[in-house]
Amino acid sequence: MKAEIIAVGTEVLMGQVINSNAAVISESLNDLGVDVVYHTTVGDNKERLFNCIKQASSRVDLVLLSGGLGPTPDDLTRDVLAQYLNEDLVRFEPGYEKLLDYFAQTGREHTKNNDLQVLTLKNGIALPNETGFAIGTYIEKNETIYVTLPGPPSELIPMLKNHFLPLLAGQKGVGAHLYTRVLRFYGIGESQLVTRLSSLIDTQEQVTIAPYAKTAEVTLRLATKLSENALDEVEKKILQTADVGEFFYGYGDENSLVQVSVDLLKEKGKTITAAESLTAGKFQSSLGDIAGVSSVFKGGFVTYSLETKADFLQIDVTKLAQHGMISEFSAEKMAEQALKLAKSDYALSFTGVAGPDEMEEKKVGTVFIGLARKGQKTLVEECHFPRNRKYIRISAVMKGLDVLRRELLENK
Amino acid sequence: MKAEIIAVGTEVLMGQVINSNAAVISESLNDLGVDVVYHTTVGDNKERLFNCIKQASSRVDLVLLSGGLGPTPDDLTRDVLAQYLNEDLVRFEPGYEKLLDYFAQTGREHTKNNDLQVLTLKNGIALPNETGFAIGTYIEKNETIYVTLPGPPSELIPMLKNHFLPLLAGQKGVGAHLYTRVLRFYGIGESQLVTRLSSLIDTQEQVTIAPYAKTAEVTLRLATKLSENALDEVEKKILQTADVGEFFYGYGDENSLVQVSVDLLKEKGKTITAAESLTAGKFQSSLGDIAGVSSVFKGGFVTYSLETKADFLQIDVTKLAQHGMISEFSAEKMAEQALKLAKSDYALSFTGVAGPDEMEEKKVGTVFIGLARKGQKTLVEECHFPRNRKYIRISAVMKGLDVLRRELLENK
Repeated sequence: MKAEIIAVGTEVLMGQVINSNAAVISESLNDLGVDVVYHTTVGDNKERLFNCIKQASSRVDLVLLSGGLGPTPDDLTRDVLAQYLNEDLVRFEPGYEKLLDYFAQTGREHTKNNDLQVLTLKNGIALPNETGFAIGTYIEKNETIYVTLPGPPSELIPMLKNHFLPLLAGQKGVGAHLYTRVLRFYGIGESQLVTRLSSLIDTQEQVTIAPYAKTAEVTLRLATKLSENALDEVEKKILQTADVGEFFYGYGDENSLVQVSVDLLKEKGKTITAAESLTAGKFQSSLGDIAGVSSVFKGGFVTYSLETKADFLQIDVTKLAQHGMISEFSAEKMAEQALKLAKSDYALSFTGVAGPDEMEEKKVGTVFIGLARKGQKTLVEECHFPRNRKYIRISAVMKGLDVLRRELLENK
Repeated sequence: MKAEIIAVGTEVLMGQVINSNAAVISESLNDLGVDVVYHTTVGDNKERLFNCIKQASSRVDLVLLSGGLGPTPDDLTRDVLAQYLNEDLVRFEPGYEKLLDYFAQTGREHTKNNDLQVLTLKNGIALPNETGFAIGTYIEKNETIYVTLPGPPSELIPMLKNHFLPLLAGQKGVGAHLYTRVLRFYGIGESQLVTRLSSLIDTQEQVTIAPYAKTAEVTLRLATKLSENALDEVEKKILQTADVGEFFYGYGDENSLVQVSVDLLKEKGKTITAAESLTAGKFQSSLGDIAGVSSVFKGGFVTYSLETKADFLQIDVTKLAQHGMISEFSAEKMAEQALKLAKSDYALSFTGVAGPDEMEEKKVGTVFIGLARKGQKTLVEECHFPRNRKYIRISAVMKGLDVLRRELLENK
């Protein structure tokens, strides 16, 4: 089954409202095996809306309209669909009762235009509105299903999940469940990843492999109508591909490098601290994003200047000035002193040039990341990150998290 | 001039990505007096994309495509548009140079598919990508303008504002110039603001006033075709409205509380430090977002546990345990000790409950924010923020910035 989602509303075309409904609806339909092939947005304009419905009818099996069900004159969806399908509008009595109760209880003036919201197609199935008044409709005509849902997400989502999807699930061509899995990679670019997997991607027929570039990382989304096993097989092939598996760090849309690293710290019963210069607390703040991190993270330092590196971390200021703040020496000492002062098992340090200007004759994007380890030699890595100040600081934090993650994995 | 915006990408149809680009583009085009009459989203499918472009050509004067300019096989926009317009693709040399530099700098493998991103239409005008590699194109053919922009908002927005809009502004039917101004408010909700301004908003005919709720702040966008003076007059009325002007803190879409606060610190020649518990470095990291902040910010502390509050900040651990970590005492001492240790003019402290669980019998969302001031009494404010962990931590940082900003404004 193929579907098109039509959002109706001039406020969307003006850019005053972001059309998040289309994403919510699409995800739900995909999970029922329905292919959403078009999203369309049209303004509060009778003729254009009519033509959009007509076009959709000619190219999909399910036409889903969101918005334009309210009480005001610019709410046209109800009338235009009735006109297109040559259907009568009738009052949905339970919805009308709810309306009467509301005005009785609140004592607000019951203006007649409110009653428009509870009109629905005579031969259709009314979709109740749990959080508002505008009634939706489900109707099948000429082998095409037409559905109307209200525009506000707070009204659309309950109607979608509790009333429309259960109705749809019964239909033919629906409900072939889609199995999906997200693999997350750090340290490899989207184009590299795709190049290395190109033959696999090209030869896959039953499982689709879709790459997405995220900020300083890449995800692969696997999807199939077959089974979890089919996903397992393709995942295995992907992770066994040369120069690919080593960059894989975890599963899931909600997952992240910081989540994985914190989980490893907890699992190994180790603690982490940090001394941050160019990142200015961004690494530690990312730890703070994770609920319950306090068992592995007690605190750390932001040392943005020469003085604070010397004062807070008790680093020999003369030596620091000799080597420079942006140096292997600086990163090493920052990490080691933070480790000592925080009595921690691991300490990360970040020092570098976020830009816009060079510092100490080091190019913008030059970053030294140190990892001090209780009872082991401190590691320092020199990195060169591209783009702008924002991206350089994020990249440094991501790299630091990956350095920590790999250390924890090796450290059995 | 009429426009259609076509988003290209299966990830949008799958609902994995919300199409926020359409809103950004629509708003910009509206400012130039261009009517956006359709938004369309189509997947990574040659035939469907071709037909979408064909249809758009038949009904609008400006066809704007976003997405599908990347290096992977599912990035089809470049090729399909070239095919539709019967145009050759040529390499945009400056973009290619940038690509070479990147791979030289980072030492990453330069796979050939990367070069696809710098191809553009032979008879078109290349649109440079300031934050990425995929090049856009602007071409007029058969009295229709075609434009391609990259999918990631971080790349699309600079290309749109700095390269495409200036080109478009010259065209006929464009640029009934719109005068716009953005006013930023912190400390008042969107509905409150709109209620207090309702009569003003209703009576405005020549100047539109559009409110937008942002994370923990609200902006008002004023727009008119008249003049800057018309904006001045409406702004004056807004800021003179009771319980409104006091929450205004600055102008502009790119502005922020942290930018305004850092500018004030520089202007007054004062320095700031911080001791952060629940925010775990988020406040200091926000300072680090601002280029050149090093003249007013030297560093600070993240004290996430009782021990680090006592050790790093030399606070009497017995008293701290008595009062609790989430207390006025704790916030006061954290700020005062940070001020002393960092030899700073001001110090902010953040301690509270980010959740999900209560702490020290304090409800989730309870936050104490301290402001230590050289030679003056320390101020402590108890706040209660709603929603979730993420929102509570952001709200605390915003509140801290506003406390600092107001102090700097009063301190003549």
